[in-house]
Amino acid sequence: MPNITSEQMRFWSPDVRELEPYTPGEQPKIQNILKLNTNENPYPPSPKVVEAVQKVLVNSADVLRLYPDPDASELKQAIAKQQQVPVEQVFVGNGSDEVLAHIFKAFFVQELPVLYPDITYSFYPVYSQFFGIAANTKILPLNDDFEIVVDDYKQPNGGIIITNPNAPTSIALGLSAIEEVLQANPNSVVVIDEAYVDFGAESAVALVAKYENLVVCQTTSKSRSLAGLRVGFAIAQPHLIAALEAVKNSFNSYPMDRFAIAAAVASFEDQAYFEAQNAKVIASREKLVGQLSELGFKVLPSAANFIFASLPNKDAGELAAELRERGIIVRYFNKPRINQFLRITIGTDEQNQRLVDTLKNDILA
Amino acid sequence: MPNITSEQMRFWSPDVRELEPYTPGEQPKIQNILKLNTNENPYPPSPKVVEAVQKVLVNSADVLRLYPDPDASELKQAIAKQQQVPVEQVFVGNGSDEVLAHIFKAFFVQELPVLYPDITYSFYPVYSQFFGIAANTKILPLNDDFEIVVDDYKQPNGGIIITNPNAPTSIALGLSAIEEVLQANPNSVVVIDEAYVDFGAESAVALVAKYENLVVCQTTSKSRSLAGLRVGFAIAQPHLIAALEAVKNSFNSYPMDRFAIAAAVASFEDQAYFEAQNAKVIASREKLVGQLSELGFKVLPSAANFIFASLPNKDAGELAAELRERGIIVRYFNKPRINQFLRITIGTDEQNQRLVDTLKNDILA
Repeated sequence: MPNITSEQMRFWSPDVRELEPYTPGEQPKIQNILKLNTNENPYPPSPKVVEAVQKVLVNSADVLRLYPDPDASELKQAIAKQQQVPVEQVFVGNGSDEVLAHIFKAFFVQELPVLYPDITYSFYPVYSQFFGIAANTKILPLNDDFEIVVDDYKQPNGGIIITNPNAPTSIALGLSAIEEVLQANPNSVVVIDEAYVDFGAESAVALVAKYENLVVCQTTSKSRSLAGLRVGFAIAQPHLIAALEAVKNSFNSYPMDRFAIAAAVASFEDQAYFEAQNAKVIASREKLVGQLSELGFKVLPSAANFIFASLPNKDAGELAAELRERGIIVRYFNKPRINQFLRITIGTDEQNQRLVDTLKNDILA
Repeated sequence: MPNITSEQMRFWSPDVRELEPYTPGEQPKIQNILKLNTNENPYPPSPKVVEAVQKVLVNSADVLRLYPDPDASELKQAIAKQQQVPVEQVFVGNGSDEVLAHIFKAFFVQELPVLYPDITYSFYPVYSQFFGIAANTKILPLNDDFEIVVDDYKQPNGGIIITNPNAPTSIALGLSAIEEVLQANPNSVVVIDEAYVDFGAESAVALVAKYENLVVCQTTSKSRSLAGLRVGFAIAQPHLIAALEAVKNSFNSYPMDRFAIAAAVASFEDQAYFEAQNAKVIASREKLVGQLSELGFKVLPSAANFIFASLPNKDAGELAAELRERGIIVRYFNKPRINQFLRITIGTDEQNQRLVDTLKNDILA
């Protein structure tokens, strides 16, 4: 950020002067680096994705000059089919971050406070501030095992958001616990943010028909290898989808471009590739957890495409720096309670082996 | 929108219950329709755009799974070069609608009211409502010739936004008038929304170095034929760009996908194609204005890729309906002062001829 004088600051909206924006994981422009810091998938998307974009390109003279379908109906249909819900229960956005922003605006700007855990996706406090509810947010600590305390979510509130599996802890919450939260809060919206659900947790999409206060949010960035494309979605009953559409259409009518729509449709249509790819990531995770445990790491039980690990008697910040010097980037959060952990994205077996070898033969040797 | 009971409405944020979203121009899914309703370019984008996306596709296994550059630096560089400004003066977003939304949040949520004309881009009142400043907005009438009254913009305000050329009127404001507004408002941000500037108006980008209170917003959707891709940008001094970045990074870190970035870069690098294509649209516009004038239409002086025209003794709403029955869609706004006008996008000479022939030989025969 440039140096800004207080005189120049007069042009900014007063609230904006106070914003503390989200810091995304680093996207280094260096060659040969092993990037295990932003939970991207180590495998490419379905080959059908490339074919679909190719098809748009062949017809591009006709279509690129035209606005996309503002409703992205084709994409909603593909998601509805894959998720086995009616299309009226689907909302799409420019990445799940945009969907989450719209969720905060649509449901959480209430008199009662919104509730979420102290350790969770670090964009939530940013949204709270952006939509002017930071002072009306109640942060609830995870327990000592970094688990959600379900009973904490039975107090008066204007909305609840839970990441499941949680990030950066990787720990999943079972559907029965989620139902307990839903039942305890018949008058507020409960959002389950399932960015990582396809790597081993149970999806709450199965509960949407039953609960009129449930919104499930997912992304194509992780389990569908489409982080480069910005496609997220939410599943909920139509009276909640309508609030998201009202917000979206008051902000940006056409957030999904023609390539993103075509590519994401192809991904949702290739269920076999999706399942095979996720199975590989899960298998690699289990192998890596075993290897790191052997090296003395404590690894939280993961249902995600990353693990959250600490090494007793070794400072996590230093360890991250030493890995970085050796061309391996992991995510380190210098925050209370988790500043002795590293969040490590699951790579291919080969990539994970490079991490293990670097630790074993070099850093910890 | 589905029927929503007042009981279901309890889940919505109270403010969201009041939103009146923007209505985008229709994107009909019908074949053989002549679409002159959303100001798209009748020509395809530069062939280099297709090549650039092709290049991403060839490498797609490597990159689609990875997040794009959250800063979209490569695109900012290309825009800076084409606009002849330092890269620190460039902001990019998911279409100029997203850029405009961020502009409202970054600069206009002030104690003093934001000012804009009564007849202008109909998304502005929607943003005002979205960001809670609807009651703090002062709408200033255009004069009887549908021109901006510069003196009206010399009253106390918390921001000004002017579309130039204005939409849907198509009338341009000269740079000296814009400088008058800038000089009269040293303490508030003046935004010039130049969605249509490349079709015959003077760009205020030339004034950015001189005015610390100026933000210029443009889009690739019209003059670069990339409506299908969602790329907009703003040019301003760094202390104003920083406010937009703070807002963007508090909302969605990665709004620009890899295809959109690559395609837009290629477009900005092909200046010759851009200029030739715009010259064709301008020539077609002048020809169409002549033909419609001969048919009795009154056409406002246009510096855009559309015209705003009325036919004395013929109801504009009826005329739009009759054109539609014959497969030609134009934009009709059933709003005070402009409900006897049609906004007609400039097509190819051939498309415009179809419009003229339909009017002459059929509807008005």
